[in-house]
Order: sequence, then structure tokens, then C-alpha cells
Amino acid sequence: MSILVVGSVAFDTIATPSGKREEILGGAATYFALAASYFTEVRMVAVVGDDFTSQHEAVLKKRGVDTRGIQRSAGKTFRWGGQYLDNLNEAKTDFTELNVFEKFQPQIPDAYHDTQFLFLANIDPTLQAAVRIEMDGVRMTGGDTMNFWITKTPNELRETLKLVNVLLINDVETKMLASEKSLPRAARKVLAMGPQALVVKHGEYGATIFFKEGAFGIGSHPFRAPALPIEEVKDPTGAGDSFAGGFMGYIASQGELNREVLKRALFYGGVMGSFAVEEFGTERLQNLTRGEIDARFQLFRELTHLG
Amino acid sequence: MSILVVGSVAFDTIATPSGKREEILGGAATYFALAASYFTEVRMVAVVGDDFTSQHEAVLKKRGVDTRGIQRSAGKTFRWGGQYLDNLNEAKTDFTELNVFEKFQPQIPDAYHDTQFLFLANIDPTLQAAVRIEMDGVRMTGGDTMNFWITKTPNELRETLKLVNVLLINDVETKMLASEKSLPRAARKVLAMGPQALVVKHGEYGATIFFKEGAFGIGSHPFRAPALPIEEVKDPTGAGDSFAGGFMGYIASQGELNREVLKRALFYGGVMGSFAVEEFGTERLQNLTRGEIDARFQLFRELTHLG
Repeated sequence: MSILVVGSVAFDTIATPSGKREEILGGAATYFALAASYFTEVRMVAVVGDDFTSQHEAVLKKRGVDTRGIQRSAGKTFRWGGQYLDNLNEAKTDFTELNVFEKFQPQIPDAYHDTQFLFLANIDPTLQAAVRIEMDGVRMTGGDTMNFWITKTPNELRETLKLVNVLLINDVETKMLASEKSLPRAARKVLAMGPQALVVKHGEYGATIFFKEGAFGIGSHPFRAPALPIEEVKDPTGAGDSFAGGFMGYIASQGELNREVLKRALFYGGVMGSFAVEEFGTERLQNLTRGEIDARFQLFRELTHLG
Repeated sequence: MSILVVGSVAFDTIATPSGKREEILGGAATYFALAASYFTEVRMVAVVGDDFTSQHEAVLKKRGVDTRGIQRSAGKTFRWGGQYLDNLNEAKTDFTELNVFEKFQPQIPDAYHDTQFLFLANIDPTLQAAVRIEMDGVRMTGGDTMNFWITKTPNELRETLKLVNVLLINDVETKMLASEKSLPRAARKVLAMGPQALVVKHGEYGATIFFKEGAFGIGSHPFRAPALPIEEVKDPTGAGDSFAGGFMGYIASQGELNREVLKRALFYGGVMGSFAVEEFGTERLQNLTRGEIDARFQLFRELTHLG
């Protein structure tokens, strides 16, 4: 089944211990779309400037991504610059130029209204809510957010969370959103805000999914997927969005929505995140095969399953 | 089969967000011995002062720990004070009074020389090596160390590592020991120093075991065990030593030494670490049942295994 992602397209300038790249294609929606494209049909709503060329678009089209929802505005595409020279786990932002992204008003093509799955990447929660309300026929909505919205627009974010089925954020964001230091308690508080499930991303240590009692089946036990110990993390940019793409893409490819599907999806999220960081930008995500993906899924299984 | 632990006994003064305790029984050897006591026969070599009473000893004896190797010296027992008020993942040391521990010279009772498994808790690597050489009939030796020895006595530590089969340290110590930021690369460098396996403890995120190619069976894939998301971590003190006790104790309880045993041992390590932090000091480790331990092992399995 198809999935729609609404979020940013950006040109990133990145420095890591493995090297530097200037103005390479990035943005949450780009990473998400490429990762999800290995599992299901992906549609994309985003805004770009005049500098977004047909070569850029070809990266998405080559992976079968439906780019009709990419709006073109006069001006420059969103730009971000950051470095991971001291710490591969946390980006130090050098600059953020919102450009055309500043006035982003998602416009959903008519042809997209039958999409069954929706992912609201990290944008203004008011826009997220509007998209979700317009896409009122979706089977499941995933969402992301960040510390900026948690602190600046807490009320708007609370309204959006009521409309999201699965929220994907990291440890720090979870604790911040819940004002609670214990992760299981924070998770319970976040689930009380609306979502049926919460995926907490732990970076190099994987991710944990917490379920609201009774949601997606019986029980309330969490489930944890690992991340792969990677020889050389060349560029951590986009790891979280690639994780979300693998997670949501796998779910959209399945007929049923139950805990076993969500658990396997958590593994596929980890798999796609682990590929993303092996090369700069979206390089590794552009040329994978399903065979490579499933082989790594097996590796994740061997990494965690007792005989 | 029996296991001998050589390490510290201490009286700890601890402050955490859950409360304070003064001069409670602790020390690496104590936590290790109590955790391992649920799996196998435990013997202990340590030094204590005049202030170590029969009530203190009774805590160990009640769990069947052989305390004949606890040496008594004139003076006070090792004291440590620390707090976790800002960060449950890292102790801030308030004071360290080595007292009788400063001149600790491990004396191994004759009756202990037939012990099959050995754990060298975090003490001077020169003492660790001497104990290991004296216990030359052991089937397997586990060891711990810390940043202090890595930087102050690197050469002595290198010699000790040649005598250790499984080293258990944390992420930061692994990278420091190997002078390498990538964990898989650091692990390979540490394994080249001697150990057949390296257990890297990730605190609240569990632990990963890396194997030297061919050691304990075929293959070179690492294996990861989770930690349990704990509602309220009351006191993280001793979590790592309890982990080591569960890990080594389970191994000693098994007939064979192979990868499947070591993987399950990693889970049991996580299980004992997760119990340890639920109450102050050794409280929780004093009154467990094997049933509770195996139920939690099942929980760890459910937390990580796909259906």
C-alpha cells in the first residue's frame, strides 16, 4: 500500500571525521522517501526552490518515488550546515537557511488523497495537523517532532499528537515532552497524549517501541531493536528519517497492523538507519537491493536472538 | 562449578533522586558475589577493616558465599561516597577513602585453588595478574578494569589482558583502551590484546559481546543483550558488577563454554544488573529467587525476540 511523506527537502553541507560535502541533497522527506521506497509506493509533499534541478528529482524518481507533490517556489531551497567532528552522535549546526521552506504550506495533490499511510516528518505541528485532517482516510499516521516545537508550540503539538498513531522521537525528546526523567514513565505519559505507540530512537543503541495497553494487540510490553555496530559512521545525517522510512515503509507493505508487524518494522527501521550512515548524504540509500536489506535484517536477528 | 571473585568490599554513601543511604555494604566483589550466588558456588577474596561486622558477613553467608577469603586488617574498610542527582548514568564521586584496601594483597586460601572460574574485579592490574598466575588451573577468567588503570598503568594492564579470557568494560573504557572512536574497531583492537571475548556494557542500553574470530565457536558476529527499561532506577551503584556476577555465574553453572552459553550469559548479566538498580545498595540482590530471575530472563527475551 502507498505512503505519503510530508516534510523537508534540503541541501546539506556536512563535515564529519570522514570528510566534507557541500550542498548535497538531503532533508527529512528525502531520506524517508528513499528508505521507504524499498518496501512500498512512496508519495512526497515538500517545497523546493529554483535550484532544485531535474538531476535532484531524478534521485527520487529512480527509486520510483512519486514527486508530483513537490512544490516549486521562487527562491532557494532550504539549506542546512552541520558538523559531527567531535561527536558522531550529535550534530553541531553551523547554519540554517529556511529559504522557501519558511513559508511551506503543504498542498496535497488530488491523486494523493487515496494514500493509506501517512508520515508527518518534523515540521510545524500546525501544518502536521492540517495535513492529517485533510488525509482523513488514512489507516495509520506516523509522526516526528523536535525540541524546538516541544518548547515553542507545546499546545499546537499536543493537538497534533491526538492525530498521530505512532510517534517516532529520541530519548531526549521523549523525556522533554513528558517532563519526566524515567524513560518508561515518560513513554507512558506520551502515550496518554494520543499515540497508540511510541518509538524512542536511541541512536547507536537502536530503538524501543512502547505500546499503549491493548493497542495493536494484547499486552503492554515494550520491544527493542538494536542498531548495528558500524565500522565507520561516515555521516549520521538522516539516520532518524531513514529509520522512520524503513519502519513506516515496511508497515505499509504489510496487510495487517499488529504487534508482530510493528516489531519487524522496528528492525527494518534500524536496518535502513544503519545503511544511511555508511556513506555521505543519501548515497547509500540510492543503490540498495532488497537482498542487501534482508541480509542485514538477518544480521540484526543474529545480533539479538538466542539460539 | 565454583567461581572465585577477587575485588573490593566497601561501605558506600550514596545520594540519588530516590533518597540517601550512609555506609551501606557495597564494593565490586560484594555485588558480584551476591549476583553470581544465584547460579553457582561463589568464593571471595577481599580485604575489610575492623568495622566489618558479622552482620555484614551474614549478608554474604546467607547467600551461601564462601567468605573464608575475606582478609581482616587493622583499620577501616574502604569507603566511597557518590551521587547521581543530575545524571543516573554517571556517578559523581564525593570522596574515596581507600583505608585497608590501599595495601590489599590478595591471599588465596588453599581450599580455593581448585576453583574453576575466576573473576578479577576492578583492582590494580598487577594484583590481577598475580592472582591469575596463582590460579593457573582455572577454565576461564573474566576481568574488569577502569580509566584509572588504562591511563596510569597501561603496560601492567596489557600484561594482565593477556591472561584474561573475557574482559567486561564499558563503551568509554573500550574506546580509551584502544585509542579508537569506532566501537567495532576498538573492540577488535582490544581483542588483539589478549581476550577471546569482550563485553562492552552500555548502561541503560544493555551490552554487546564481541568475539575474537573462532573463539568459543565459529564466526565473528557480535551479540547484543538489552537492559530492561526500569520504572525507577533507585541506585545505579553496582550495576556493572552485578552484571558481571550474572554473566560469569551463569557461565560457571554450565558444562560447556560456547557462544550460545555466552549469549545467554549476557542476558543473565542484564537481568542481574536490572535487579540491582531497583533498590539501594545490595538490597534487591539479597532476596531474589531463581524464579524471579528466570521470569525476568523471559521478559528480556520478549523485549528483543521477533515472533
